[in-house]
Amino acid sequence: MTIGAAVPRKEAVPKLTGAARYVDDLVLPGMIHGVTVRSRAPRGRILAIRFGSGVPWDEIVVVTARDIPGRNCIRLLLDDQPCLADGFVNHPEEPVLLLAHADRALLDRARAAVEIDVEPAPAVLTLADSLAGGTVVWGTDNIFKEYRIEKGDVDRALAAADVVVEGTYETGAQEQLYIEPQGAIAQVDRDGAVTVWGSMQCPYYVQKALMPLFAVGPEKARVIQVETGGGFGGKEEYPSMIAAHAALLARKAGRPVKIVYDREEDMAATTKRHPSRTRHRTALARDGRILGLDIDFVIDGGAYATLSSVVLSRGAIHAAGPYECADLRIRARAVATNAPPHGAFRGFGAPQSIFALERHLDECAARLGMAPDELRRRNFVQKGGTLATGQVVRDDIDMGALLDEALARSDFHERRRRFAAENPTSRVKRGMGLAAFLHGTGFTGAGEKHLQSVVAVEGTAEGRVRVLAASTEIGQGTNTVFAQIAADALGVPYDAVDVAQPDTAHVPNSGPTVASRTVTIVGKLVEAAARDVKAALAASGAADIADHVARHGPLRAVAEYLQPPYVSWDETTFRGDAYGAFSWAVYVAQVAVDTVTFEARVEDFVAVQEVGRVMHPVLAVGQIEGGVAQGIGWALTENVVWRDGRMANCRMTDYIIPTSVDVPPIRAFFVESPYAYGPHGAKGIGELPMDGPAPAIANAIRDALGVSPTRIPATPETIEETIEEAHG
Amino acid sequence: MTIGAAVPRKEAVPKLTGAARYVDDLVLPGMIHGVTVRSRAPRGRILAIRFGSGVPWDEIVVVTARDIPGRNCIRLLLDDQPCLADGFVNHPEEPVLLLAHADRALLDRARAAVEIDVEPAPAVLTLADSLAGGTVVWGTDNIFKEYRIEKGDVDRALAAADVVVEGTYETGAQEQLYIEPQGAIAQVDRDGAVTVWGSMQCPYYVQKALMPLFAVGPEKARVIQVETGGGFGGKEEYPSMIAAHAALLARKAGRPVKIVYDREEDMAATTKRHPSRTRHRTALARDGRILGLDIDFVIDGGAYATLSSVVLSRGAIHAAGPYECADLRIRARAVATNAPPHGAFRGFGAPQSIFALERHLDECAARLGMAPDELRRRNFVQKGGTLATGQVVRDDIDMGALLDEALARSDFHERRRRFAAENPTSRVKRGMGLAAFLHGTGFTGAGEKHLQSVVAVEGTAEGRVRVLAASTEIGQGTNTVFAQIAADALGVPYDAVDVAQPDTAHVPNSGPTVASRTVTIVGKLVEAAARDVKAALAASGAADIADHVARHGPLRAVAEYLQPPYVSWDETTFRGDAYGAFSWAVYVAQVAVDTVTFEARVEDFVAVQEVGRVMHPVLAVGQIEGGVAQGIGWALTENVVWRDGRMANCRMTDYIIPTSVDVPPIRAFFVESPYAYGPHGAKGIGELPMDGPAPAIANAIRDALGVSPTRIPATPETIEETIEEAHG
Repeated sequence: MTIGAAVPRKEAVPKLTGAARYVDDLVLPGMIHGVTVRSRAPRGRILAIRFGSGVPWDEIVVVTARDIPGRNCIRLLLDDQPCLADGFVNHPEEPVLLLAHADRALLDRARAAVEIDVEPAPAVLTLADSLAGGTVVWGTDNIFKEYRIEKGDVDRALAAADVVVEGTYETGAQEQLYIEPQGAIAQVDRDGAVTVWGSMQCPYYVQKALMPLFAVGPEKARVIQVETGGGFGGKEEYPSMIAAHAALLARKAGRPVKIVYDREEDMAATTKRHPSRTRHRTALARDGRILGLDIDFVIDGGAYATLSSVVLSRGAIHAAGPYECADLRIRARAVATNAPPHGAFRGFGAPQSIFALERHLDECAARLGMAPDELRRRNFVQKGGTLATGQVVRDDIDMGALLDEALARSDFHERRRRFAAENPTSRVKRGMGLAAFLHGTGFTGAGEKHLQSVVAVEGTAEGRVRVLAASTEIGQGTNTVFAQIAADALGVPYDAVDVAQPDTAHVPNSGPTVASRTVTIVGKLVEAAARDVKAALAASGAADIADHVARHGPLRAVAEYLQPPYVSWDETTFRGDAYGAFSWAVYVAQVAVDTVTFEARVEDFVAVQEVGRVMHPVLAVGQIEGGVAQGIGWALTENVVWRDGRMANCRMTDYIIPTSVDVPPIRAFFVESPYAYGPHGAKGIGELPMDGPAPAIANAIRDALGVSPTRIPATPETIEETIEEAHG
Repeated sequence: MTIGAAVPRKEAVPKLTGAARYVDDLVLPGMIHGVTVRSRAPRGRILAIRFGSGVPWDEIVVVTARDIPGRNCIRLLLDDQPCLADGFVNHPEEPVLLLAHADRALLDRARAAVEIDVEPAPAVLTLADSLAGGTVVWGTDNIFKEYRIEKGDVDRALAAADVVVEGTYETGAQEQLYIEPQGAIAQVDRDGAVTVWGSMQCPYYVQKALMPLFAVGPEKARVIQVETGGGFGGKEEYPSMIAAHAALLARKAGRPVKIVYDREEDMAATTKRHPSRTRHRTALARDGRILGLDIDFVIDGGAYATLSSVVLSRGAIHAAGPYECADLRIRARAVATNAPPHGAFRGFGAPQSIFALERHLDECAARLGMAPDELRRRNFVQKGGTLATGQVVRDDIDMGALLDEALARSDFHERRRRFAAENPTSRVKRGMGLAAFLHGTGFTGAGEKHLQSVVAVEGTAEGRVRVLAASTEIGQGTNTVFAQIAADALGVPYDAVDVAQPDTAHVPNSGPTVASRTVTIVGKLVEAAARDVKAALAASGAADIADHVARHGPLRAVAEYLQPPYVSWDETTFRGDAYGAFSWAVYVAQVAVDTVTFEARVEDFVAVQEVGRVMHPVLAVGQIEGGVAQGIGWALTENVVWRDGRMANCRMTDYIIPTSVDVPPIRAFFVESPYAYGPHGAKGIGELPMDGPAPAIANAIRDALGVSPTRIPATPETIEETIEEAHG
């Protein structure tokens, strides 16, 4: 058995030896470079495009919207986003035209020499202005999507409550900051067949986007994922855009074209985490029971719909957390602004709504004079209880036990007492904060059923095993865990298993690499297909795989997704089983705040979680450590400064992510409670650790300072303002 | 008119900006690296191949002769050379198996861990041993090919002569030492289609080699020349080998494979200039008339036939030089040894036979007490006279005038007198040497007629002109001169002409880029096709090219080779018109020899030549300078040290080519006498300057020292030996 063991990562040796090739390492014969000319204005009509002098324009390949052979859209959900702005721009950094040439320096000069004259139109630059509706920039009301989740009668609960606590919480945009910027190479054959190699999470999404753009079928839109240096959701939908641009240039140039963004363009122009604002009104009993939750959750989607409706739904479903509450209402809206579209980012809406809830519960506890852990303990949902959508909890979960472990591991109460004693006489004040939360595994509701993912496993003539799936290795361990699953299911050594490169021409569509679904949903299919291969091998009486292939020919099995039989979901009312299972966690942060510089520093972090089964202990701990570090950045330092809808600090020198000196040792602990429909019992783990750190840290700041931080990132300036507001 | 002007080289900007991509710059998606495991033994039966321990052999792609889907040969002329040795090796460095892996360091370890056990068989390691025939290693007599050229009755002339002078002259191997080593990338599709990108002179040769090897037609063997850093003949036939190896690995690996040799492997394993031995018996009249020439010319072809028969024929045809001689016999043989096959190298046999003749004529002059220029002047062929094959000279040539100019420019006689006076009292002794020679343009005899070269010229929708030919730019200026010719023929600016990348899928076969044929033969076709495009444009009444394409569709013309009407050649008797035209030259070298260190140094060099028309003065001078520099190396320092058939000094630290400090200013002068069948009158220029330097330099050493150097390279050791032999 390799499951549960820290086998070497499949991609470790190629990455360490340099054999792994990223997009920018690839140099195709005849290849030239492409760049994107973008709008500076947030909104308006394009009057003219002027090509400045001093540039040999006849040597440069120029592509505009008129060069698109099919539909000018990046197909995703609503098809509202053009591939290239045609006559009108809706956000700064919107792509207007594309240039290609062999000489990168010349290309940079050429890009700088293009001027786009825009007649300005009124723009909406904040979530509040969008909701106010004075200027409509999308549809009839700026609303991309609205959902309501209702259970019981929250108005009656609020009216009858002993105490009602209200609060408003805001989270900022966050840049995914994968180590490798976005990049793609495209080639278009004489017969119009498009091939794209790119850094991406979802090859079949890119294929889907290329098909209407080039008016071709899937056989003429081939997409191949190459080694990818991180994604975090940032390479879920955006790669369709850069792939489309490279392909349009390649088509016109008649040769391969590479586009790789530099860090500044990547930060300024590609998607970020949706900013959010959440209002809570909570009905409480004196004893701490939550009687009613009234939640108004709004996210800023930027200028085009992209995935905002889906981000919104996950945020809404997670907005009431792991608590039992009979009466609740969640109103969720995604609104348009004239910022570059916000998009997928680890957690996908849940971190925003969980931040608000977990931050708010500390305010509720304070109002009731209860300890924050105690308030939560009294309201945790139990196995058999129901969540916000009415989903009955089937997981074998005991949140109280997770909480106990987190409190014990972090020495929560003792430290809290000590800090309370020390803080009054100390410049650096310390506090303890916690957050309890859950995260659904896989796509929401009937999403997995619609996807109908497929995986193949085959034996090769050399006696090796090959897993074929569209799921991508983006640094998180897909290939390692798939190989573990296949090896154990077939009873072959781990080293005998290869995972095929995701290539739409060669691998079946196992769905996108998102939504904490890869191990649980796709891994389960790997297991099923591998077992079928084993059965075929047993039936043929062959000595081994090579023997079978030599004597009987191809040895291959395909597995398709089957929904757990109990899952039932109503997409219109948002009632039913939102997920087949959840992962669960309690996180505790110890934070020190310098009351002179207002700098907050995480000094200790305990992460206790139940993720079904830990498939690979090193990768699992890595996911927790990475998620917590990214959560620390979101909570404290990662501040996107907006200026006229444009990110003004799109450099790593002024957009600050945590380094190793900013992250304490993260103490991760796993409780294992196997999930019957995950391989070996595994549930999702990728997004969970993004949900808890920010509220735990913000709650710790509250504990340290006695004031309520309601906005993240809690930069020194924000903390100072919070103190001034509290005392003013 | 751009012809005759030094327009900017077409490839200058991409090369200077780094946009030009050589094979080793290309990195295809999924590409891995390949290496070749070679025989150490010169000859013998392969008993076993042993794969050493400590290498993960199951990860490495291994190809042997058994993996070849078609015929195990590198198709060229006789198909005697295997692609991979199968059971028997015939030379050191013979490829036996191929390995591929993503990790180059691992691959190097793997290669070192392979042991090839060979049961030794008797080997022939020198030309003399091969001729002796004691051991037969090829065919029945070690003779790849024998030619005889006969005219009149040389035996009678020898019997009747006033004086008969005999001499034997030897030339060594020479490494082409292009700046970019050999390299290729191959990809094999699932349907078996092979694509190769490589550094090469002759894409259609590589295609021809791949077809029988993979048992595919031309539509499934696509070859694309990428930017090539020099060839000098070294990339005429060898690229078929490396391309075949990369393609075999790519087929087995199912992914692209790159093989790029390092300098050591390139020097040790690839072709070099054929070593030669020439015996002269010359019948002379007292007045200096050459009455009879009896020449026995032998070249060492190495272990396989490759191009040796063709090299031999050019060497034989040029062996009697630019002299009229009624009675002559040239016996020419190419013999086998167990060295790696020797191959094409600038001059292609002519430098070897011309060295012998021009060196020998100085011995004849000395015997007659004549000045070397005077002897030659009395024997120069005149227009209307006949050459060795009976070819009547139609060129408007006056060799006496070239000689006069060379003597005048070099101050030949005055310096000779001065050095004769100074030498007796000087440690450094100086001498003047000259050589008179000719070089045929294009393929020998009916070669061009057999080739039937084709070129296309087309107008594009953007109003540009594109030349399509398989002729390669290898640093010598093909693309520049083709663009000049097309621009002038069409009356469009030089900058409006592009030359397509040689790609067997897209360009017609204009023949190989060899034999000083590119400008004269292929350029003439460019001119003809461009004129047809112009005529089509005039006939359509379109305003310009873009207008024509928009209104009438494709604008394209194709030109095929037409043999000059007077050319007649008998391949069996070697009688007739060997070439449509010749280029002619007289070169003079001033050399200083240090009589303590025995180092020879070229102090001045005058090169006077008649090449028809100078198309581009900078490129033309560059050809002369480069050829003379390469000739200086061949004459003095480029000494291939053989040990058991293997090059023992395959490093640039011990195989010494001239650097800029070793080459004097080369003073090149052109006499222009237009050739009716060359574009604008141009004849060949690429090989000519390789023929003259070595004999001129060796003759200058003779002039300086009074002893006769008969072997090159005339290294210090060789000069010392020559002095000792003369005085011993």
